[in-house]
Amino acid sequence: MKIGIVGLGLIGGSLALEFGDRAHELWGVSRNPETCKAAIAQGVVRHASTDLASLSEVEFVILCSPIPTILPILEKLTQYLAPEAIVTDAGSVKGAIAAKATALWPNFIGGHPMAGNTETGLQAAHRGLFEGCTYVLTPVDATPPRALEVTRSLIATLNVNLVLATPEAHDDAVAFISHMPVFVSASAISACTSITEPDTLKLAQTLASSGFRDTSRVGGGNSELGLAMAQFNREAVLRSLRVYRDCLNDCLAWIDREDWDSLQSFLEKQHQHRPDFVE
Amino acid sequence: MKIGIVGLGLIGGSLALEFGDRAHELWGVSRNPETCKAAIAQGVVRHASTDLASLSEVEFVILCSPIPTILPILEKLTQYLAPEAIVTDAGSVKGAIAAKATALWPNFIGGHPMAGNTETGLQAAHRGLFEGCTYVLTPVDATPPRALEVTRSLIATLNVNLVLATPEAHDDAVAFISHMPVFVSASAISACTSITEPDTLKLAQTLASSGFRDTSRVGGGNSELGLAMAQFNREAVLRSLRVYRDCLNDCLAWIDREDWDSLQSFLEKQHQHRPDFVE
Repeated sequence: MKIGIVGLGLIGGSLALEFGDRAHELWGVSRNPETCKAAIAQGVVRHASTDLASLSEVEFVILCSPIPTILPILEKLTQYLAPEAIVTDAGSVKGAIAAKATALWPNFIGGHPMAGNTETGLQAAHRGLFEGCTYVLTPVDATPPRALEVTRSLIATLNVNLVLATPEAHDDAVAFISHMPVFVSASAISACTSITEPDTLKLAQTLASSGFRDTSRVGGGNSELGLAMAQFNREAVLRSLRVYRDCLNDCLAWIDREDWDSLQSFLEKQHQHRPDFVE
Repeated sequence: MKIGIVGLGLIGGSLALEFGDRAHELWGVSRNPETCKAAIAQGVVRHASTDLASLSEVEFVILCSPIPTILPILEKLTQYLAPEAIVTDAGSVKGAIAAKATALWPNFIGGHPMAGNTETGLQAAHRGLFEGCTYVLTPVDATPPRALEVTRSLIATLNVNLVLATPEAHDDAVAFISHMPVFVSASAISACTSITEPDTLKLAQTLASSGFRDTSRVGGGNSELGLAMAQFNREAVLRSLRVYRDCLNDCLAWIDREDWDSLQSFLEKQHQHRPDFVE
């Protein structure tokens, strides 16, 4: 199939590598001419351009650019696309995108590959990024069955765990397990940088180890992505953060009151429930 | 040297393996006779017993049992020890232990190997656990110079980053970078388990991936350890959690008010500052 990838960063570049391996022909679009050159030189795509018009002959497009750019790019892209071309995106919010994108292009179906995001850019792109990951597709009532079926078959070749959900259910769920943790984790870094005593701050920096590393990872990541999560999934993120704050306040109150039984039973519960979410 | 290890779990077992490799003779003590048998059978220690009296001839003791048991065990142990024997511990709080332990046994020096704690028990013990980790020693004014020097030389053979700090400075620093993250992380699990809509909960469990995995790791760990951190470092943990809550409330307020400039600058700052703590 002739596949266009808009945005040749970690996700777009990695998708291009995978689909190239599966005998598809790849057209890349990046706003940066250097990225276009590098993507061709590294064999990530066969063709690359800064111009969306270069996608006039592709049958399938994956928009892998940052969340705020997805709708504006789609709006421009529609003038060049063949009518039967199918478009999907890779944004980590879907409610703010799926309905508007479907209005712009009926053959649109929202997508979200839930793959790592610590590193960014084409140089971070690699084969295997999606192996075993969850890939969500969010069809709406207006989604043509053919668009869903073609997208589903193509994505399934990545050996991912393919999940269908409504854009709203997707956003409610990821608010809790993906977006809220960004602010929880960023606040942990912020609290540590707020240590006022210089010797204690220096010692904390020396002693920080695996616990801090893991807890702070998503909060110390791509700030553009964290901001977009809050902007484009604001209601659900606010709801999840308020529930989170209540849990934290419970912890604080138990420690303050030395209610060790409650704290112990809380910690045991989290130890038991974590495997319901991740291995 | 004849070295006694009390508590043959992840830390005690791994220390025994390392010191055994360095031609020391190891005496293990565990409250569980099965653990004693397994530790000998697996070559972790040469001798093992449930009885502290078995340590009457050792020159160096490392108390690797859970925090609440360290002082009670030391109190019993003193009747058996040779007067020149040096005792250290491996507890992750030091203020509540170091002064009292030094009163019980003048040749005591507090220690804290900052190594992973996701798994527990002798079966998790392994060589290399301490390689490159930070190992804190917390001498006090009353610590005999010989006790510090002997401990320092022995620990240095583990290829660790050896750091000296007062018990109080240690506790203030680890409250922020190690203890606070446990409650921050446990609250994230708790918030996710609090999702009231069953379909959203199920979807969240399906979609949880690396971001949730890392953010929830320390909060879903050993509840006994988390409880002891709060109990034995209560004041500093409360202080760090209150600073943390202020940071989180700022995030919430910015998202609520749609003050995206402030949120963006906050996220950028955390991205910049995280490498001051961890690579």
